[in-house]
Amino acid sequence: MLEETVKAFYAKSLSEKFSIADMGCSSGPNALEAMSVIINTIFTQCKEKGQTSPEHLVFLNDLPGNDFNNVFKSLPQFYEKLKKQTDLEMETCFISGMPGTFYGRLFPSETLDFVHASCSVHWLSQVLEGIENNKGNIYISKTSPKNVFEAYLDQFQKDFSLFLCCRAKELKSKGQMILTLLGRSTSDPACNDCIQFWYLLAQSLLEISREGLIEEANVDSFNMPYYTPFSGEVVDIIGKEGSFEINNLNNIRLNWDPNDNDENQNYAFNKNTSGKNVACHVRAASESVLVSHFGEAIIDELFLRYSRNVGEHLSQEKTKYNFVVISMTKKS
Amino acid sequence: MLEETVKAFYAKSLSEKFSIADMGCSSGPNALEAMSVIINTIFTQCKEKGQTSPEHLVFLNDLPGNDFNNVFKSLPQFYEKLKKQTDLEMETCFISGMPGTFYGRLFPSETLDFVHASCSVHWLSQVLEGIENNKGNIYISKTSPKNVFEAYLDQFQKDFSLFLCCRAKELKSKGQMILTLLGRSTSDPACNDCIQFWYLLAQSLLEISREGLIEEANVDSFNMPYYTPFSGEVVDIIGKEGSFEINNLNNIRLNWDPNDNDENQNYAFNKNTSGKNVACHVRAASESVLVSHFGEAIIDELFLRYSRNVGEHLSQEKTKYNFVVISMTKKS
Repeated sequence: MLEETVKAFYAKSLSEKFSIADMGCSSGPNALEAMSVIINTIFTQCKEKGQTSPEHLVFLNDLPGNDFNNVFKSLPQFYEKLKKQTDLEMETCFISGMPGTFYGRLFPSETLDFVHASCSVHWLSQVLEGIENNKGNIYISKTSPKNVFEAYLDQFQKDFSLFLCCRAKELKSKGQMILTLLGRSTSDPACNDCIQFWYLLAQSLLEISREGLIEEANVDSFNMPYYTPFSGEVVDIIGKEGSFEINNLNNIRLNWDPNDNDENQNYAFNKNTSGKNVACHVRAASESVLVSHFGEAIIDELFLRYSRNVGEHLSQEKTKYNFVVISMTKKS
Repeated sequence: MLEETVKAFYAKSLSEKFSIADMGCSSGPNALEAMSVIINTIFTQCKEKGQTSPEHLVFLNDLPGNDFNNVFKSLPQFYEKLKKQTDLEMETCFISGMPGTFYGRLFPSETLDFVHASCSVHWLSQVLEGIENNKGNIYISKTSPKNVFEAYLDQFQKDFSLFLCCRAKELKSKGQMILTLLGRSTSDPACNDCIQFWYLLAQSLLEISREGLIEEANVDSFNMPYYTPFSGEVVDIIGKEGSFEINNLNNIRLNWDPNDNDENQNYAFNKNTSGKNVACHVRAASESVLVSHFGEAIIDELFLRYSRNVGEHLSQEKTKYNFVVISMTKKS
């Protein structure tokens, strides 16, 4: 959907300069992936049409503690590769870093043409408080009291509205935004495909608490600052906030183990390998939050257990993530 | 001069948004200093006049290997301080990082309003080649052959012209640039106050080469990628390049030891302390270049010697840096 959205947006725009921001770029090997797709799409299209390529100013955003050095060091190689792929001089693409929380203003008014955010907006702005009665859980579960459901939805509504409001100020008129976030395929906040994920991590935490490595009360008091909204909830918030018009909304389902996909013909399920693959992704996304609550010492052991628990789970039931992908335009 | 230039520029500009770039920001405690002066000047002026403060998008530039993480981590504190000083909401100042060499394009056309560069443009784009006959020296010296003088001036002319040409493309019409670089107070390329500096480092290198820690040939083949132009040379290059009009050019002389200044009433010369202070600054600026030629192992020993040699030198002769400060406007 990203490529199509980019093509449609640029076909309508006549500008010679574009400012693009990626919200929550992270610092791993995928930090430049979305920007690479966007820029490649444009450059290839321009080349096909014999047009001069527009100039791009790209902002990679993440929190100030993100490892921007790692991303920046990979830039010379990234520019080289892009140059080869597009056969264009690289004086048309300039990549910078913008540190700060996207639950707040990051840019002057009407600075951006295009905003992209993938797997970042489902993270909440803060660890939830006042839901200590969510015992033995670290996220919504089938047994969670009613106030837990309410607290999570309430925080997501506040955070996502603030995100929309800030981006609306920063985007130029008719600016485009495309968001991909983990979400639910049904309106039930305790539907299996969304809670299973953290349920297994909670089980792993409880295991190591039974062995005395952490206090059980410590698990009770922890709740993942994370919410997987139902697409209907997302649509509601966008409507109420009022700055954007939705062009497109899709739900995309992908297996937990990214190697288990249609293109991988040689895939054969192995619970150890799958468990490790999933644990590796979840660790990359959640480690910093877990460390700040439980400390660094338990992390290796925790994800060893988690990887086993995920493997066992997948051997009984193939489970999928549900991604909500929304493309929208700032109202003029 | 920075404050005056900023005041004059903003007084003429009616824009509500400003893009500022600092070329060669480095990563130490001074990385945000110039930007702090610029932003504070504007905010204070706006407050005095009862005007709404413009929004600022700031780009801190340095090479991709610079420690941007360190600068970014200090931003929350920087914003807090600025907020207290100016009593303004910080939704008016957004600081980003732009990695890349300033001897090349860094931004799309007509993106910037204001460019600042302090103590960066006297660094050349590359280590000079073809001057192996500059034996026992690491920079121009009184005994250097004629081709050494020519090679240094030639490289500076190429680099500085390219710098001006790139910035001219990136600045908006009537955009402002203020540069501070180490330069000579006379036209003589071997004048004492500019060569003494590296002469003492060359002596320190030769000392450790006599003790077998490095080869003397290794010292002969090394030449600092650095040039201290005479202000006349700077004016010539700006004129020939043709994009900028000079508003102001000053030479400012400051003692090598930054603690030895008029404001420091308690200053009493001590050769050990002064030697260490100077060595510390020179090390911060030149370490990466020295490491890539001589390796990491000799650096501590080298700067121990250098600190002693500088102390001895200063006990005989108080020596000053000469800074050339130029403010210029892009021709429309």
